[in-house]
Amino acid sequence: MSLFVRTIVKKRDGGTLSEGEIDDFVKGVTEGAITDEQAAALLMAICCRGMTTEETAALTFAMMRSGDMWDLTEHGFVGDKHSTGGVGDKSTLVLAPLLAAVGVKAGMMSGRGLGHTGGTLDKLEAIPGFQTALPKERFDQLLRDVGCALIGQTGSIAPADKRLYALRDVTGTVESIPLITASILSKKLATGAHAVVFDVKTGNGAFMAKAEDAATLGKALVETTRATGRKASGYITAMDRPVGEAIGNANEVEESIAMLRGEGPKDLRENVLLMGADLLVAAGVETSLKEARKRLNAALSDGRALEVFARLIAAQGGDASVCDDPKRLPQPVAHEEVAAASEGVVARVATRELGLLAIELGCGRARKEDLIDPASGFRILKKPGDTVAAGEPLLVIARGPATARKEGFAERIAGCFEIAPPGTSVSTLPFVVATL
Amino acid sequence: MSLFVRTIVKKRDGGTLSEGEIDDFVKGVTEGAITDEQAAALLMAICCRGMTTEETAALTFAMMRSGDMWDLTEHGFVGDKHSTGGVGDKSTLVLAPLLAAVGVKAGMMSGRGLGHTGGTLDKLEAIPGFQTALPKERFDQLLRDVGCALIGQTGSIAPADKRLYALRDVTGTVESIPLITASILSKKLATGAHAVVFDVKTGNGAFMAKAEDAATLGKALVETTRATGRKASGYITAMDRPVGEAIGNANEVEESIAMLRGEGPKDLRENVLLMGADLLVAAGVETSLKEARKRLNAALSDGRALEVFARLIAAQGGDASVCDDPKRLPQPVAHEEVAAASEGVVARVATRELGLLAIELGCGRARKEDLIDPASGFRILKKPGDTVAAGEPLLVIARGPATARKEGFAERIAGCFEIAPPGTSVSTLPFVVATL
Repeated sequence: MSLFVRTIVKKRDGGTLSEGEIDDFVKGVTEGAITDEQAAALLMAICCRGMTTEETAALTFAMMRSGDMWDLTEHGFVGDKHSTGGVGDKSTLVLAPLLAAVGVKAGMMSGRGLGHTGGTLDKLEAIPGFQTALPKERFDQLLRDVGCALIGQTGSIAPADKRLYALRDVTGTVESIPLITASILSKKLATGAHAVVFDVKTGNGAFMAKAEDAATLGKALVETTRATGRKASGYITAMDRPVGEAIGNANEVEESIAMLRGEGPKDLRENVLLMGADLLVAAGVETSLKEARKRLNAALSDGRALEVFARLIAAQGGDASVCDDPKRLPQPVAHEEVAAASEGVVARVATRELGLLAIELGCGRARKEDLIDPASGFRILKKPGDTVAAGEPLLVIARGPATARKEGFAERIAGCFEIAPPGTSVSTLPFVVATL
Repeated sequence: MSLFVRTIVKKRDGGTLSEGEIDDFVKGVTEGAITDEQAAALLMAICCRGMTTEETAALTFAMMRSGDMWDLTEHGFVGDKHSTGGVGDKSTLVLAPLLAAVGVKAGMMSGRGLGHTGGTLDKLEAIPGFQTALPKERFDQLLRDVGCALIGQTGSIAPADKRLYALRDVTGTVESIPLITASILSKKLATGAHAVVFDVKTGNGAFMAKAEDAATLGKALVETTRATGRKASGYITAMDRPVGEAIGNANEVEESIAMLRGEGPKDLRENVLLMGADLLVAAGVETSLKEARKRLNAALSDGRALEVFARLIAAQGGDASVCDDPKRLPQPVAHEEVAAASEGVVARVATRELGLLAIELGCGRARKEDLIDPASGFRILKKPGDTVAAGEPLLVIARGPATARKEGFAERIAGCFEIAPPGTSVSTLPFVVATL
């Protein structure tokens, strides 16, 4: 029995792997000495048997060390945010320039859409010319010149995660809290931020639909980050409905610009302030969350945050004039309203399904090779608890130039809204479900 | 998410797979549509979550149908035996000709050594010229002409098992009762015997060291075989010590010949009679096990069984004169005694370790490409419960011409014998631990 088979068998039988065994696994994955079938077997054993906090930390650190480790000390404090992903969540687009506007550097490495959720990179690329595939030198330059940076993952950061994630995707081993934790943090920590705030979504549009799973993941994320000597905090927030009104790409950028101008939906503002205030306190800019929120609100209201966003867009090669004239973003060619069939109150929005329908419309990729139509998207007008009249619009579909009409599509969207008789009391998650 | 990933996730989360899902898996494995990493992930999920009786049967049948299905109806009743493997177990060599000698056809497909155990094929090939790689036509011919056949597995029988077994070996997914059951039975049932008797070993030299695991496996083997409309029975037998005295290849053939001549060790005779009597009753040749044993004993005593073995050897291309003159088998070039260091009683024999030392000596292969030295082996002289004087031999090492002397080898063998002070009472397993 080879040494690595011994490791697999140990985990299969519920044992605890040593740091050395985990290091050898990650090294074998990175260097290719471990076959895909062996790696898949261990991943499944981890899914079934779990990992202790120490094992999860060891896996995270080993994966983090599998590639480049960025040193950001020249920039002083750099903050980062991670969201586990939801529908309509464009907080990163607002948060990065907002933090920079109040003097806190924000260096963020984002991903593409995953499953039913949109991706920050896909949204940013709706801005004509915007570049996200930038090397460390450009990242440093952006932090120096603009105070924030929004870039994509580079292949040299946590390559072990790249191989493991591809394997997990095809072997049914995605849903495992230790594996999710290590995947998120190995990349996050390798990019060198000094504090990370976590936004762990829960509810029917989140990867962690159950609040207890979200809490377990959130705890693992915060504790493992702290174990590296960095600051970490976070919240479990509601994803039983989309964040804001826009779901898509260009329309989410437009909503972000509105927010940066001090307008925009209340729940998006709440999401941004929640995360931002933690980072202001972590940076030592404020000592109370209340004062931090005040400072952030001011920068949204007086245009400073939008001004930074415009500079960021320009510095990343994009057309900064979209900040003044959002109609320069890719525009839809047609709109279609989805109306309520009956009077009543929205009892539930099937958020995950709505996300999948948005992907189907062209907001994301069902397969890697699919093309995104950045102009396509939804505007959600009614959320759980809202009253509706019969025939009143629940959602508006925006079709981009590349988006084909599909028979029955509007009906499937209507099916995501559960309308209860007028006066029914509806329970929804509070925006902040818990503090991590 | 691909359909097959759905199946993996279902099992990962503890679900029960449908017959269709299992069929698709085995078909995908056979045709190569399912990747190694996906198959490995499902195998590990099965290891961790288990399978119901119905799932195990569906897996067995699907694997059985993945290749040729032999039809043996022309031969009337054909019996088969399966042992889960032990050290020194040469029962098949005796049983096949013995059954034929009393008019019950025995068609047996055997394997090579596995782990710490010897293999029937390796033992048979110690007979000069003996061929085991024979096609169905030769198998039929042997059953017609001799009444028994001892052949090796052909690639066209249960090819799904071939691929899955190779994967299990490198992914730490060997030890799973549903997977072991399906692997054993898919091959066994595809070769068409009408009744199978199972010898499930337990104790420190068995794959299923714990009696409860042996019982679970035994139950699965018997029930799944019966589910195909065939007769099945079996026993859990003791493997906390080797069967008989000889451990090796040529020496095990020699011990088998002695047994077929009506001599040989008592425990080997018991093993053979136990399995044989069940098959005589299954064949309808006798109605009571007692009468069946009597009939088998007679054929051992009067030389009929040995006569059939000689005909079988000749028919399979071997030198039948070994039956009259076992010294024509490959002979060792040197012997070495391993003596007891102190007076006392043998409290325990580390049977698995002894098996591994035999492999190391040259009786088996640690790696596929290793060569077997058929003349090498052990003769075990003392078993648990036996008294020994200080300096009295416990075991004799026979070195074949290809076997190198190794420093400290005899000491390692001595270490397999635990000697307790004289008069210590020793508990060993009864030969028949349970009836399945």
